Parts: sequence; C-alpha cells; structure tokens
Amino acid sequence: MDILFTFKIEEHQKEALIKKFPTCTFHFQRTAACDEVEFADVIVTYGGNIDAPLLERAKKLKWIMVASAGVERMALEEIEKRGILVTNVRGIHKTPMAESVLAHMLTLKRSIPEIYGIQEARDWTYPFTSSELRDSTALILGPGAIGTEIGRLLQAFGVKTIGCNRSGRETEFMHESIQFDALLNKLPEADYVISVLPSTPETKGLLTEAHFNAMKASAVFLNFGRGDVLDEEMLIRILQERKIAHAVLDVFQTEPLPKESLFWVLPNCTVSPHVSSKSGKYIERALVIFQKNLEIYLNNSNELANIVDVSKGY
Amino acid sequence: MDILFTFKIEEHQKEALIKKFPTCTFHFQRTAACDEVEFADVIVTYGGNIDAPLLERAKKLKWIMVASAGVERMALEEIEKRGILVTNVRGIHKTPMAESVLAHMLTLKRSIPEIYGIQEARDWTYPFTSSELRDSTALILGPGAIGTEIGRLLQAFGVKTIGCNRSGRETEFMHESIQFDALLNKLPEADYVISVLPSTPETKGLLTEAHFNAMKASAVFLNFGRGDVLDEEMLIRILQERKIAHAVLDVFQTEPLPKESLFWVLPNCTVSPHVSSKSGKYIERALVIFQKNLEIYLNNSNELANIVDVSKGY
Repeated sequence: MDILFTFKIEEHQKEALIKKFPTCTFHFQRTAACDEVEFADVIVTYGGNIDAPLLERAKKLKWIMVASAGVERMALEEIEKRGILVTNVRGIHKTPMAESVLAHMLTLKRSIPEIYGIQEARDWTYPFTSSELRDSTALILGPGAIGTEIGRLLQAFGVKTIGCNRSGRETEFMHESIQFDALLNKLPEADYVISVLPSTPETKGLLTEAHFNAMKASAVFLNFGRGDVLDEEMLIRILQERKIAHAVLDVFQTEPLPKESLFWVLPNCTVSPHVSSKSGKYIERALVIFQKNLEIYLNNSNELANIVDVSKGY
Repeated sequence: MDILFTFKIEEHQKEALIKKFPTCTFHFQRTAACDEVEFADVIVTYGGNIDAPLLERAKKLKWIMVASAGVERMALEEIEKRGILVTNVRGIHKTPMAESVLAHMLTLKRSIPEIYGIQEARDWTYPFTSSELRDSTALILGPGAIGTEIGRLLQAFGVKTIGCNRSGRETEFMHESIQFDALLNKLPEADYVISVLPSTPETKGLLTEAHFNAMKASAVFLNFGRGDVLDEEMLIRILQERKIAHAVLDVFQTEPLPKESLFWVLPNCTVSPHVSSKSGKYIERALVIFQKNLEIYLNNSNELANIVDVSKGY
C-alpha cells in the first residue's frame, strides 16, 4: 500500500512510521502535485490542493487523511462521488485553540494592552479599569471538540456557557444548549460570542447584522472558526459604529488578510493571523491519530476514528 | 459604637450600612488622620497610615478591619501590645489576581505580544512560534487563598501544580506540596515560579540568586506577592544574563516603580503597576466580609472571620 505525505514531518517521525508499518510504502513528497499521487492509496494532507484535477490523477486513492479540522478546500463532490474515505484530526486543535481563546479573553479583561502601554510609557499611574471574567456569560457557536474545550475552561473561570448548534442537542460543558434558530433571542444575554463553526453551506453567512445588533454594546465577538460565517463589510461597520465593544478575529474570508483591510486598524479589533491552533505539538498529535487509524485500516478491524461526513462537510 | 471608614465607599453603600446597623455610628472620613480617630472603636482601612502616632491617638480602638491582604504597613508591634483585633479580607483578591496571573501566562504562551506586533505592522506572515500551557509545571509560592485559586485554574489547563509554604502542609489544588527548605531542589522542575507570598520576616529575601540559577533557562517567574521577597538588583542581573526566560512583576520594593528602574526596559520583563487585584468588585466584596464580621462582633456570637495573626503578619 502506498501512502503519500504532502507535508513535512521530522526524520525520526518518518523512521518510526516505516518501522511500524513494514507492509506500507511511504512517499514523503511534501506536495500532492507529484508523480506518486497516481498510485497512492492514501494521501496525508493539510487539505489544500486536493482539487478535481488532482483527484483525477489519483486513480487508486481510497483514503484522505486530512491533518486539519476543515475540509472545505477539497473537491468534496468529487470525493463523495468516488466514495473516497476522509478522516480528519478532529480535536487536535482543541488545546491550543481553547488556550488562545482564553488568552484573548483574559487579555482584554485583565488589561494586558494597557499594562504594556504603561510599561512603554513608564507611566505607573496611568489610569485604567479592569474587570473579571467570572460571572460573565459566553455563547459558543459550534460546541464540538474545540467549543466544548473552551466551555470546560470557561466554566472553571465561573463563566456561564451557552452552546449553540444546528440541532440544539446538549453538549458537555454547556450550562445551556440552543439551536441556531434560537440564537437571535439569546444573544442579548451574552458578554462573549465565540464562533468555532466550520465552513459549511449552513454556516456561511449565518451571522447577520441583526445578530450583531442584538448583542450587548459591551459584548466581545471572537471568531476562531471560519471567516465566511459573516459578511466582513458588515462587521467592520458594526465595529466602527461601536455596536459591540471588541472583536478578536483569527480567521478571515481572504487569508492572508489584505493590507488594505480596515480590520488591521480598527481600535476595537484584534487581528490574529490564523495562528490560534499553532503550537509545537501539532504534527506529533496528528501522527498519533493517523497511526491508530492506519492500524485499523490495515487490519480492517474497526471503523476508523474521525471520519468526515463529506456531504455535511465536517 | 463608632466606626471610622478611611476610604471612599458609594452613597448607597453608606446608606445600607447605616440602615443595617442602627446602633452604630459611622464616620465616613476617607482618612485615618481625623478627629474621629480619637473615639473610634473600629477602623475600616486599606492598611496605610495605621502607624504608631495614629494608634496613640486611637485610644478606644479595639478592631481594625483591613480591606487588603497585607498588613505590613501597619504598626504591628503596637497593635499586638494593645491587643487590638485585626481582620482582613483574605480571599477577596483571589478571583482578579488568579485571572491576572493566568492572563499573563497565556499571553506569553499564546504569543499575544507578537500578534499585536503583527497587527501594528500589518504583517500577516511574520514568523513566530507559540506553545501550550498544558503539561507544564508551576511552582506556587504561598498556596493560600490566592495561590490555591491559581492552582485550581492551572489544573483545569492541565498544568502540574506544586505548592510551597513554610510547613509543607498539603493544600487544595496542588499535586504536590513542599516546604520552603525543599524549594531549591524543586525549582529545576518548574516552568513557572509564581510568588503570591505576603511580606513577613520569613519571606523577605526568601528568593536568592541560587534559586534563580536553579530555574530552567525557559522558566517564567511571576511575582504577584510582595516585592521584598527578592533583591531587585539580583533579579535584574538574572534577566540581563537570561538565566530565566521572562519575569512578570506586579509588585516592587518601591512603588510606584522609579522611572530609572531597568525593569521598565528589559525586553524579558513585564512591569504590571500593582494592578492584578483590581476589578470593579473590590469594595462590594470587602463590605460583604465587613458586614458579616460586624454582625458577629455586635452579637458576640462567634469568632470573627479572617482574623490576622499579628505576630506572624498574615
């Protein structure tokens, strides 16, 4: 069986794979656009470049292991038609992303930017006020692996958590669960609105001007899901008119965010260059998930973990 | 009974006290240096200005309610000799302070300063690396109300917590408890060394150069206790020589920190102007504690809460 890796892994990680799976032939090409794609049974990828022309070349392809959470950059229709299995690394981002979300929330609450400004000016007595995360309310859009990890940490800080998903089904670490339909009515209660939604036909443009108008003027909006959950021009207007207090954006419709975007310069907006999932542990964790699944795949022993429902997109 | 308040409280808070305790006469003077001190039975104070000359004037004084954690600015010998009861607001700082400590730790781990720098430069691709709090080890000096609250939150983040106090007695939310004597040997294990120690004869100068030399080069030191736990010249040298990675200092030997202090400009030092306990909820919480104690005091029904052992200083 031929396995094509399209991203860089360390030498010792390659050796460990080769040793553990002697019946497999590994191709560590760091791209999917290579000759090996034509006879690869398995592609291990970050999800980019898996487009229709490439799939046409990949005639033997049976399984795509996506080492990322989102699959929206792949040619999903073609994949579904061919019945290619897709698995992802669901949950792999949860620790760094939840830590990043908490970092930004605490940064704002505990006046880290003001403290840094004071240091730069050596002005001990510069006046500012801080407040507490405790007793605030957070509404989490997309309480999956990442969302519930954020909920777990927020609950430790004494924050009320409300999960919001398509079905309204109850999820862990949420004091309350609502469905998308009930969102507009719930928003006035939230001090934080945190989106970790994937990009799917249902989530695209989910958050409208009416949603932002329904939020508190003191609300902080954090988008750590996908940029297309809202219209960016609309959000810029909301921030300019101070309809909400602040936005922390880790994702955008166009990435890298164009230099001319107003998000860069709005005083009540934090631009994070899609780094919230970054930490030194990513590939290590992805390989653990991949190896477990490869073992199952080779032995045909069980259903693979983290199978993506290609029709739903997550 | 005459009760002298030496700091500002809101009108509605004054009215609530007067209504709730009709047998008491309240004096809201916003200073201890007033005529009323001569017949006050109780002084409610932040702890400053309670010096020997003032105590000499306060002939009727039986109880000092200190609305702060530290009592080191008061004339403790005189207070002990006179048998004046001292209570504090132990625990009142725990929520904002623990949130501040976590804010600074997550800020460094999740690259908030780098992200802000990127935004200022509009440079999406600026390279930097982030890491995770999870699986690190924190050594907490002074696992009292604040220290254990920090431990509780750190454990939620998957951090190993080691408490260090005089006796080595076990405390909540610490995976391990050691005494001061064992500190030097334990320091090489810690990624974070967090002091929330009060200023007492035993803690003054507790952390020596040998302690900092024993820390990891990657260690972060956070002082949210009192500045006199170490020699500042020594810590400046340690930071200049990069014996540790970073220091976050909320307390200093001289406050405000003098303009010429090198702490202001060291790139691996964060100066926080003694604000970690600040949040809008302070006086509200102090009054809750005071009212409970005043009720007990008037009814002689029980021992007051939060009595300070004046001989120990906490």
